[in-house]
Amino acid sequence: MELKRIGILTSGGDAPGMNAAIRAATRCAIYEGLEVIGIRRGFEGLLEGDVVPLTSRSVGGIIHRGGTILRTARSERFQKPEGQVEALDRLKELDLDGLILIGGEGTFKGAWALYKKGFPVVGIPGTIDNDVAGTDVTIGFDTAVNTALDAVRKLRDTASSHDRLFIVEVMGRNSGFLASMVALASGAEYVLVPEIPSDIERLCDKLYNARRQGKTHSLIIVAEGVMSAQDLALRLKDTAGYEARVTVLGHIQRGGSPTAFDAVLASRMGACAVEALMEGKSGVMTAVQKDEMATPPLSVAWEEKKPLSADLLSLMDMLSI
Amino acid sequence: MELKRIGILTSGGDAPGMNAAIRAATRCAIYEGLEVIGIRRGFEGLLEGDVVPLTSRSVGGIIHRGGTILRTARSERFQKPEGQVEALDRLKELDLDGLILIGGEGTFKGAWALYKKGFPVVGIPGTIDNDVAGTDVTIGFDTAVNTALDAVRKLRDTASSHDRLFIVEVMGRNSGFLASMVALASGAEYVLVPEIPSDIERLCDKLYNARRQGKTHSLIIVAEGVMSAQDLALRLKDTAGYEARVTVLGHIQRGGSPTAFDAVLASRMGACAVEALMEGKSGVMTAVQKDEMATPPLSVAWEEKKPLSADLLSLMDMLSI
Amino acid sequence: MELKRIGILTSGGDAPGMNAAIRAATRCAIYEGLEVIGIRRGFEGLLEGDVVPLTSRSVGGIIHRGGTILRTARSERFQKPEGQVEALDRLKELDLDGLILIGGEGTFKGAWALYKKGFPVVGIPGTIDNDVAGTDVTIGFDTAVNTALDAVRKLRDTASSHDRLFIVEVMGRNSGFLASMVALASGAEYVLVPEIPSDIERLCDKLYNARRQGKTHSLIIVAEGVMSAQDLALRLKDTAGYEARVTVLGHIQRGGSPTAFDAVLASRMGACAVEALMEGKSGVMTAVQKDEMATPPLSVAWEEKKPLSADLLSLMDMLSI
Amino acid sequence: MELKRIGILTSGGDAPGMNAAIRAATRCAIYEGLEVIGIRRGFEGLLEGDVVPLTSRSVGGIIHRGGTILRTARSERFQKPEGQVEALDRLKELDLDGLILIGGEGTFKGAWALYKKGFPVVGIPGTIDNDVAGTDVTIGFDTAVNTALDAVRKLRDTASSHDRLFIVEVMGRNSGFLASMVALASGAEYVLVPEIPSDIERLCDKLYNARRQGKTHSLIIVAEGVMSAQDLALRLKDTAGYEARVTVLGHIQRGGSPTAFDAVLASRMGACAVEALMEGKSGVMTAVQKDEMATPPLSVAWEEKKPLSADLLSLMDMLSI
Repeated sequence: MELKRIGILTSGGDAPGMNAAIRAATRCAIYEGLEVIGIRRGFEGLLEGDVVPLTSRSVGGIIHRGGTILRTARSERFQKPEGQVEALDRLKELDLDGLILIGGEGTFKGAWALYKKGFPVVGIPGTIDNDVAGTDVTIGFDTAVNTALDAVRKLRDTASSHDRLFIVEVMGRNSGFLASMVALASGAEYVLVPEIPSDIERLCDKLYNARRQGKTHSLIIVAEGVMSAQDLALRLKDTAGYEARVTVLGHIQRGGSPTAFDAVLASRMGACAVEALMEGKSGVMTAVQKDEMATPPLSVAWEEKKPLSADLLSLMDMLSI
Repeated sequence: MELKRIGILTSGGDAPGMNAAIRAATRCAIYEGLEVIGIRRGFEGLLEGDVVPLTSRSVGGIIHRGGTILRTARSERFQKPEGQVEALDRLKELDLDGLILIGGEGTFKGAWALYKKGFPVVGIPGTIDNDVAGTDVTIGFDTAVNTALDAVRKLRDTASSHDRLFIVEVMGRNSGFLASMVALASGAEYVLVPEIPSDIERLCDKLYNARRQGKTHSLIIVAEGVMSAQDLALRLKDTAGYEARVTVLGHIQRGGSPTAFDAVLASRMGACAVEALMEGKSGVMTAVQKDEMATPPLSVAWEEKKPLSADLLSLMDMLSI
Repeated sequence: MELKRIGILTSGGDAPGMNAAIRAATRCAIYEGLEVIGIRRGFEGLLEGDVVPLTSRSVGGIIHRGGTILRTARSERFQKPEGQVEALDRLKELDLDGLILIGGEGTFKGAWALYKKGFPVVGIPGTIDNDVAGTDVTIGFDTAVNTALDAVRKLRDTASSHDRLFIVEVMGRNSGFLASMVALASGAEYVLVPEIPSDIERLCDKLYNARRQGKTHSLIIVAEGVMSAQDLALRLKDTAGYEARVTVLGHIQRGGSPTAFDAVLASRMGACAVEALMEGKSGVMTAVQKDEMATPPLSVAWEEKKPLSADLLSLMDMLSI
Repeated sequence: MELKRIGILTSGGDAPGMNAAIRAATRCAIYEGLEVIGIRRGFEGLLEGDVVPLTSRSVGGIIHRGGTILRTARSERFQKPEGQVEALDRLKELDLDGLILIGGEGTFKGAWALYKKGFPVVGIPGTIDNDVAGTDVTIGFDTAVNTALDAVRKLRDTASSHDRLFIVEVMGRNSGFLASMVALASGAEYVLVPEIPSDIERLCDKLYNARRQGKTHSLIIVAEGVMSAQDLALRLKDTAGYEARVTVLGHIQRGGSPTAFDAVLASRMGACAVEALMEGKSGVMTAVQKDEMATPPLSVAWEEKKPLSADLLSLMDMLSI
């Protein structure tokens, strides 16, 4: 089947750089002679036929914008088999020959369902959590790390002025990529991540030693998936009497203009997705593996577990002396 | 009594620009031929005699740093009459002829106690809340507003991508200056401040109308002194079924490099404080009133209530249509 | 004449906050029951009839954007009397009863010409130079100062690492507001402004003394209207053998999201301009005088000279010891 | 020879993240039981014996600071054979068993000279240009790209408001890494890099086509090594009559806090350098190759040429339609 007309949608949580990926995929497709349709509000918008044509001009001036111009939404309907059949009907009504889906694991599972029904799909990993196996990095991760780092640097000012212990809760339900990068980059004293069992005793020992060595303030980063910053503060108080201030960074980690890294990554992945469709690939994602572009199967995202670098964690531990 | 040697301390919550004020007061005093002693950790450090000489060089390279190099602390001892007598003894032991205190209302009350005992003191208003009567602005307020604004702008990306209602809790236990400036500058739909009784019904009406007029996302700013963002979310759900996402900006509002406005304000106030001491003034604060420097009595801070501009609030209301 | 339909245009150099002013004027006018027309590309677009209706929705999401959505352009045609007559015809064809013009002195002179012909006009001062007499501040000034300050802070890193002398050229053809605020806020050693004759000898003496006192690096801010940074570097080399590195900040000073101060100022001025037209005022500008809104005649902008604060300059001098 | 005491110096142009590398190397060495000496002002300071002991505490609070606390300087003396012999004497007098040198190609050549004389050295590549062969990335590059990107985004505001053509000159005497990343991340229309012969005709054609397709403003990025932005503007005017505005970003590209990427990279490289010395390696640099740490010989830096990715350039070309 010749490729003439493709759709693009974003789904799941938004991530900085999604717009840069939309722009790149659109312009690359137009460059290759294709027509491009934007589907708004993810699978829900697909079911409702909420679409807009995308042109070189209509994706101008968006490369630096946070969020996604196509918006995103949850769709309970699409979770069900009937919804997926209906989505397929919509894709055909829209006369589309391929679909590019930008999002995380949930989005990729949805894409997989369409692929299994024979529709050509390519996924682009866009999530601030970086928790998609198959690719070393996801769009939005670098920006989120830098946003969190900026916030932590501001907290340092107050922590050092007040000789205080601060606990900062960052995003990451199942993965500690964000937490560990922020901890290492900010020079935090301790980080708690979902991949490693928490050892509150050891944490308290470390805080005790830091005080003895003359550190007047300390910083702990905790991924939300481990426990809330509030709960951790209570446990530190119970275990060793430490008083900690608590900050939950929250949704600001999703926003903001993409960093250069994310804008470039999104541009490369957007173009790569179009090329993959052109080459007849389907059921794959765009990925970076050891600095090279690759297109592994979407299913890698849920069949494999992406390991956290143990090196980085031990390095952080050593450097916080 | 001739002025030869003065002390500087910071007390209460830290605010961006405190270091710029320390630098300005120090260099201005040295320029005038005075010696300068930095007292660490506020009144507690004063009681402990925790001091450091300040020179032109030792306050170099700090104008842009957040927090306070002199640190700050709570002092229960100084709250009691005996503690204040002891503090006076320390000031004499340190051979000081005057004291500059940077902080908010609590700091000014402490300064007042020393003034009542005959010791020359001048206060510099440094607090991100801007809730000090007697001066139109306090050091740190402009920076905190801009920090909160940056965060809210990031949330806008996500709010508009997900068609969501966001509630952002900003600092302000007794005052809505920060909340109302952030709301106006960010184009928020609604703001709740301690100075005005909350009207949840009216808020729900406004949200309803915004949706009807095609707004797909909305933003509410709430000062912490009104209620927590979490509680507000519950009330919106109970009253009208709205689902809101909640973000608490927290301590990041205290940190960061001072804006140009705060760096200049702090420089002017630091110099003004030294001049006031040189002119034999005591029991006063440095202040900006209608764009002019002034030195009203410290007691204005707690005897008067600084009114929120009703104009700004009604303007925000009108502009969020 | 009853006011039913007004136009808005931006002219001259763009300034951060212009969009916030467009939004405020539009929404305020709609709130008051008026229709609003946006005129693109300033007077040139007016002559060409290049217009777009403005609605509450069409000015949504622009409060934080730099530049101006209405764009701006030079118009030689409008400089001539015939052009001004033609512009008046266009305004009548467009069925407008009033015009709001956002810009600097040049824009205000154009507005004055229309006013003299009997057309109701109100000016809003928007220029990063802050060189408009009649108002204490102009929209965009605070943002430009902070942008320049951020750049200078980055240069400090390199200056102090290399023990170097840096000269930074900032905008300001006829005025030194930007230069003097940046110098004071960054802790620069020296500033050259157009309002005060340059004294290269004194500057060299000051640099010499700074070195003697142990300063290993120095920073000089020069307004472009005094001389280029390059020329100043040559003169320092000729006069005293100093080697200086040169940076010209250039157009980045015009861009970026408005600070909170500028977003709020623009909102207030946009609303004030509509109110002024509603009250039958014409030939005036919106202004801030001693922290209060005012509407002085446009002609003040070129009939008076706005003085630079001598206090700030001498303060900077004292604090750079 | 057992390793007991090592020195660290920074040389050449400063780069964001150098302090994070100093911190990491220092703490890692102390963790391993070594003593650490900081040598100030590069090779010049080494010749003068300008040193300072480094401890865990003395490198606290520097991870986020731009520049280098050890400062850097040019040394003509060290260029000569006698200077290098003298440097070796100093290293022995200082009782050092190894030296870590942070900088670019020039620094590595100096390190090589010491290595050739038998002194154990390890280089850490720190330069914003990323032009060191042997490693995929250098410390400071990511930060510089983001700094330049921020500036270009501000220029976009003005360019689009005035329908203008902007030329931005970025750093890069021999390499176009910075220019090409900034161009791709900012969505620039054209980039000129030293590695590829400039084709002004083609550039003019592209600008002409962009206008025809409705682009009202355009952005060209030029690496300083190709020609100055001013010269390019003249050539565009001569060739096709285009009027362009010119901005030279200059030294701000060297400053600022390191991004998360650079802070982490610097931490990894600092630790890796200590490990390399511990393992008896010498004459090598710390490097990242395909996302893995490696220690290739220093000489790779000048014996090989690091190629610019042709893919990225053609991608930029395609995406700027």
